[in-house]
Amino acid sequence: MNAYVYGYGKPGKERLIVIDLGVTFPDMDSSPGVDLIMADVAWLEENKHRIDAIFITHAHEDHIGALPHLWPRLRKPVYARRFTARIGALKLEEAGIGTEELHVVEPRPQVIEAGPFKVQFVPVSHSIPESSALVIDTPAGRIVHTGDFKLDGSPIVGEPFDPVLWHEIAGEGEGVKLLVCDSTNVFSPQPGRSEATLAEPLTKLIAEQEGMVVATTFASNVARLKTLAEAGKAAGRSICLLGRAMKRMVTVAEETAVLTGFPGHIPAEDAADVPRNHLMLIVTGSQGERRAASAQLSRGKYLGIEMKDGDTFLFSSKVIPGNERGVIRIMNAYSEKGVEVIDDRGGLYHVSGHANRPDLEAVHDLLKPQMLIPMHGEHRHMREHSKIATSKGIASLVATNGMMIDITGTAPKVAEYIEAGRTYLDGSVLIGALDGVVRDRIRMALNGHVLITVIIDEDDVPLGDAWVELMGLPEVGRSGTPIADQIEDELAEFLERAPDKIISNDDKMDEALRRIARQVTMEEIGKKPEVTVVVSRLMAD
Amino acid sequence: MNAYVYGYGKPGKERLIVIDLGVTFPDMDSSPGVDLIMADVAWLEENKHRIDAIFITHAHEDHIGALPHLWPRLRKPVYARRFTARIGALKLEEAGIGTEELHVVEPRPQVIEAGPFKVQFVPVSHSIPESSALVIDTPAGRIVHTGDFKLDGSPIVGEPFDPVLWHEIAGEGEGVKLLVCDSTNVFSPQPGRSEATLAEPLTKLIAEQEGMVVATTFASNVARLKTLAEAGKAAGRSICLLGRAMKRMVTVAEETAVLTGFPGHIPAEDAADVPRNHLMLIVTGSQGERRAASAQLSRGKYLGIEMKDGDTFLFSSKVIPGNERGVIRIMNAYSEKGVEVIDDRGGLYHVSGHANRPDLEAVHDLLKPQMLIPMHGEHRHMREHSKIATSKGIASLVATNGMMIDITGTAPKVAEYIEAGRTYLDGSVLIGALDGVVRDRIRMALNGHVLITVIIDEDDVPLGDAWVELMGLPEVGRSGTPIADQIEDELAEFLERAPDKIISNDDKMDEALRRIARQVTMEEIGKKPEVTVVVSRLMAD
Repeated sequence: MNAYVYGYGKPGKERLIVIDLGVTFPDMDSSPGVDLIMADVAWLEENKHRIDAIFITHAHEDHIGALPHLWPRLRKPVYARRFTARIGALKLEEAGIGTEELHVVEPRPQVIEAGPFKVQFVPVSHSIPESSALVIDTPAGRIVHTGDFKLDGSPIVGEPFDPVLWHEIAGEGEGVKLLVCDSTNVFSPQPGRSEATLAEPLTKLIAEQEGMVVATTFASNVARLKTLAEAGKAAGRSICLLGRAMKRMVTVAEETAVLTGFPGHIPAEDAADVPRNHLMLIVTGSQGERRAASAQLSRGKYLGIEMKDGDTFLFSSKVIPGNERGVIRIMNAYSEKGVEVIDDRGGLYHVSGHANRPDLEAVHDLLKPQMLIPMHGEHRHMREHSKIATSKGIASLVATNGMMIDITGTAPKVAEYIEAGRTYLDGSVLIGALDGVVRDRIRMALNGHVLITVIIDEDDVPLGDAWVELMGLPEVGRSGTPIADQIEDELAEFLERAPDKIISNDDKMDEALRRIARQVTMEEIGKKPEVTVVVSRLMAD
Repeated sequence: MNAYVYGYGKPGKERLIVIDLGVTFPDMDSSPGVDLIMADVAWLEENKHRIDAIFITHAHEDHIGALPHLWPRLRKPVYARRFTARIGALKLEEAGIGTEELHVVEPRPQVIEAGPFKVQFVPVSHSIPESSALVIDTPAGRIVHTGDFKLDGSPIVGEPFDPVLWHEIAGEGEGVKLLVCDSTNVFSPQPGRSEATLAEPLTKLIAEQEGMVVATTFASNVARLKTLAEAGKAAGRSICLLGRAMKRMVTVAEETAVLTGFPGHIPAEDAADVPRNHLMLIVTGSQGERRAASAQLSRGKYLGIEMKDGDTFLFSSKVIPGNERGVIRIMNAYSEKGVEVIDDRGGLYHVSGHANRPDLEAVHDLLKPQMLIPMHGEHRHMREHSKIATSKGIASLVATNGMMIDITGTAPKVAEYIEAGRTYLDGSVLIGALDGVVRDRIRMALNGHVLITVIIDEDDVPLGDAWVELMGLPEVGRSGTPIADQIEDELAEFLERAPDKIISNDDKMDEALRRIARQVTMEEIGKKPEVTVVVSRLMAD
């Protein structure tokens, strides 16, 4: 969930620009029920009078996904290249937000002036069209913010990485003061491979299949979609795209003219009529997402299409760490249907969109920055990247979330810590990650939930017995008597003997009843549940 | 969670033996709050008069972990080799179960007669001492049940894989009718490596470190523990084991004489006094388990020991698919402390305990079975293994959970489907996976929980207003008014106008109040929560 801020000016009065507003995805372990996770922009919101612009480097969700959710809090001009801006506009429109502040930018030499900043978009190769690095000139020097990139001389769709251009950028003025650089693949020791290397193995693989072929990849990897579709065509197959995100990406790429010559494809409703050995589906869901086309097809018929014994399912993708369970679930579901599952085990059918270690070193050498701050990766990736920089005599530091770094000297230096947590999109509202809402959900999921209701009459006497309901707990435990009945019995005994000063005090009642419920449950099933106590007090008329 | 059953006799009256009673581990996605997952043995329990014995191949949790939980339902003699039996006995004793039915078995040539079965334990190499295959002779032919194994000629601890012995087994009588064979590493194309190959790289690595060294591996991999400890000793370090499971394994291995010459080690309370460059910890938690020593050390001081900048943490292990998130969390926590994290990326510091594809093929060739049923692996692994067998002319079939296979013919054939689900250990009780308990927990975690209490008086008139509590839901949504208040208002309006026939009917009240709560919540935050309605009815005296 990328969101970077650069500032220039007197401390506390710096003018600010924001780079990217991305999301990350929730999981059951830490964020059950949450829809999206993004940066908490409270500090930016408080200081929004100081923000001059927002720049979006490319249209991956982890860089643009929070735009419709966070832009309404900031309401500043947004700059992006054509394809990225179009994806952004669709997101804003869907959220009912106007797009008048969204500006399409041409790549360098166009310069956007935003307060003290002069910003140029410089094309880089990545796994989505029009990914850009930003060259940010300030009175204190030049910053190169790489965005996500790889060194690909023939990326199929979009601009190749252009070392001559970067050489030029490095040579202008006083050179590059700071390189803020993608670190994702710092642990990959071999030079990265070009998107173009995939055409041959994919074409060969698909030609060899006898049943239906279904391939999945990242929806936004338009180059890969083209390679896959061309491989299918070459094997005499009709191509059908399944999945909203994927169709949108192809449409926007064609509309913005970054994609041309994409093979003709048929709608899903016609696919069922094509003989399976002449059909190839390209579908969403490379990460095992439960609602995506790949998962739907693994469970059974989807849009009239069903995979069968003898068909082939190809993952032209890698598993993003943490998504293994979902992907394995789908692979096994296909295996049970007799479908041949092919993944990228051998490295033949997927290439990464990020620069590997030798590529990163080549960029360091090309740009010769005075300082380097690693970005995009886990802490261990950034730490490794920082070590490489340091070993080459480039001053470096790992910036963690919320760290404000002073780069006016000869080495990066921590200036301040800004509170920078996470915001959750939960249904249709934004909540703070530390609001306790999700914590309560996790507790209910781990421990179950016991509800106790008691009615106390006008004279502070319990009216009837306490009532207990269990949710997410076994009905009976060791003793064989229903747990709810046992808690009710214990509560009845307690209420009968409890002095007025407890009965009349809500907090004491809550505490006492909760303790009894937890104790009984502990004895019966060895768990201490969450407990909600509702004491209803009747009032004298 | 392995549990296999072999039967011989007239259909429906077969005498039965059970091989292994294992567990698998829960996750938040599908089994939040659950402690352990094991096979549902309802069918075995119903037919326990037909069971003659239980055999345990080795002491890994996925083969022995359910013994204390499921044995009380079956109460049949259990056979295992010395080390395995000792681990089993400790488990039974902890659960307060007598061990008189637990029998220590010597390896072949000892034969255990159990009804129509004659069973021999045959030593195989794996990643825990005394792992055994079972040679099961029946009047219908010989079955070889491999258990978990690899082909290791020098496993450091325990017996090497002995091809001569297996050649002999294959040659006896009419040879092997059925091979039931480990499939875990069927997708690994290279021959497996010996445990002995690790000593050199581990010794070199540890000798090169300057700060404290902490290494983790699977607690039961006693051979690895020995190699690590010896490498530490060679580097002049004091060795300290942290983690109950690991200490237990070493103790049991020494008691049963399968482990000798394990380097002397110091207790945790002395470790803090050793200079860090002379200290090496060997700790539990290679899979990122939150309560294990590795996770505790990543969070801060643990037993007086703290990891610091310049220390090294070594994963002499692989990540079991699905555990990536936990492991990555720990790696990054160490990275933030400046600790160098070394994992098995290069294949230098870990070897698998399972046979790779060429090793499996070697075993097929050695045993020349008439049929092969793959086991131990996901469906896709078993399917691949089955394809290999078929391609070599060995009749094969993938058996999924609950499938009863007839092997009396020339090829395996599905005879029957037995209902075979999962049982959860939840706190201290066993519950059925489909009881709805865990489903309710998942729903509360995803959707939150709304509680509604209403009091109805003797004349079927609501007494006061309905009371609403939220758990795991934001307090306010779109409108800015607390959601609970809004639901209460809507409920008040409804109750005021509701006809007697609804007010007096519990089911209709439940349905109506639930619908209102879900509708308000949906409008406010776009989520439909779980709702519990408690209607308390006052009775006329």
